[in-house]
Amino acid sequence: MPNRPRIYLAGPDVFLPDAKAFAAQKKALCAKCGFEGVFPLDAEIKNASDLQPEQLAAAIAANNEDLMRSCESLIANCTPFRSVSMDPGTAYEIGFMRALGRPVLGYSNTAAPLAQRSRAYRESTRPIPCDGDFPETEIEDFGLAENLMIDCAITASGAKLFTATVKPGHELTDLTAFETCLATARNIL
Amino acid sequence: MPNRPRIYLAGPDVFLPDAKAFAAQKKALCAKCGFEGVFPLDAEIKNASDLQPEQLAAAIAANNEDLMRSCESLIANCTPFRSVSMDPGTAYEIGFMRALGRPVLGYSNTAAPLAQRSRAYRESTRPIPCDGDFPETEIEDFGLAENLMIDCAITASGAKLFTATVKPGHELTDLTAFETCLATARNIL
Repeated sequence: MPNRPRIYLAGPDVFLPDAKAFAAQKKALCAKCGFEGVFPLDAEIKNASDLQPEQLAAAIAANNEDLMRSCESLIANCTPFRSVSMDPGTAYEIGFMRALGRPVLGYSNTAAPLAQRSRAYRESTRPIPCDGDFPETEIEDFGLAENLMIDCAITASGAKLFTATVKPGHELTDLTAFETCLATARNIL
Repeated sequence: MPNRPRIYLAGPDVFLPDAKAFAAQKKALCAKCGFEGVFPLDAEIKNASDLQPEQLAAAIAANNEDLMRSCESLIANCTPFRSVSMDPGTAYEIGFMRALGRPVLGYSNTAAPLAQRSRAYRESTRPIPCDGDFPETEIEDFGLAENLMIDCAITASGAKLFTATVKPGHELTDLTAFETCLATARNIL
């Protein structure tokens, strides 16, 4: 099947121990909808074992940017990751594709909006050093799932940041809301 | 002074209670270096009080994207924000400017690298619901300050994600590392 629209699969999924198997699941769902799923780890790094950590990081970043440029769209896993909010590498990639004028889609496997998560964090013991969350710092509250730049880029693309309530322990891996993104992408791409 | 390079001042600074006064400080430092600092809140929203929250969010996002397009560069406050990591709206903006081919710079007011902060979080009581941090989830460790997409975009721009150790309570507001960014921007822009 040539010329299937290519979709970059952004998210902290790359940190899963079985990341490539998980990517294969996402790609199979893409194929069922007529898309080609493209995973950040798809590009091989040449001579990776010869590289210093910073060189390896630079090679991965350059590969990911090349992969994004080769795609028509992006679907991001925006589920909170060690944070009130989503993974910043994924947020970076949404902004990158948005600036290229390509539709961005995303999902989050928590139904609690950003403001609710932020308040829960503020009321907690706040274990992270230097987190800059002081009582006088405003909590963004537009009723959105994420920082407004993220939600609005997705809405401006003709979609919505889809959320789902999932079984505990399945926050990073449940694909129900990802499938909703794919169904929406069929109307956009 | 016409034609001073315009620099978009990205960061969770917008959430400070005195955000506009803080922006004025940053802009004065920009001017001293021959730049025009541009703050996300610079663009007025017309009839803001008539808008529903989601409409207001969309107007702010559109304004910020227009402001970014009007700038030659960006300096991002990448200090952790309610998280192991930086504010995702700011990460989005770094990716956006990077895709436009414009140099991106950034700073973080914590000297602890990302991996160290991630491990501290994992060992904590982890107050955030649905944070997707399970013991089997890899902790990225390239010795960098942030997710590699962020650090590497800044390095590829000819700079470095500058870090500083600051007085507790000054994580969001200390401008020492911001000034290092400005000095570096003079060699890039």
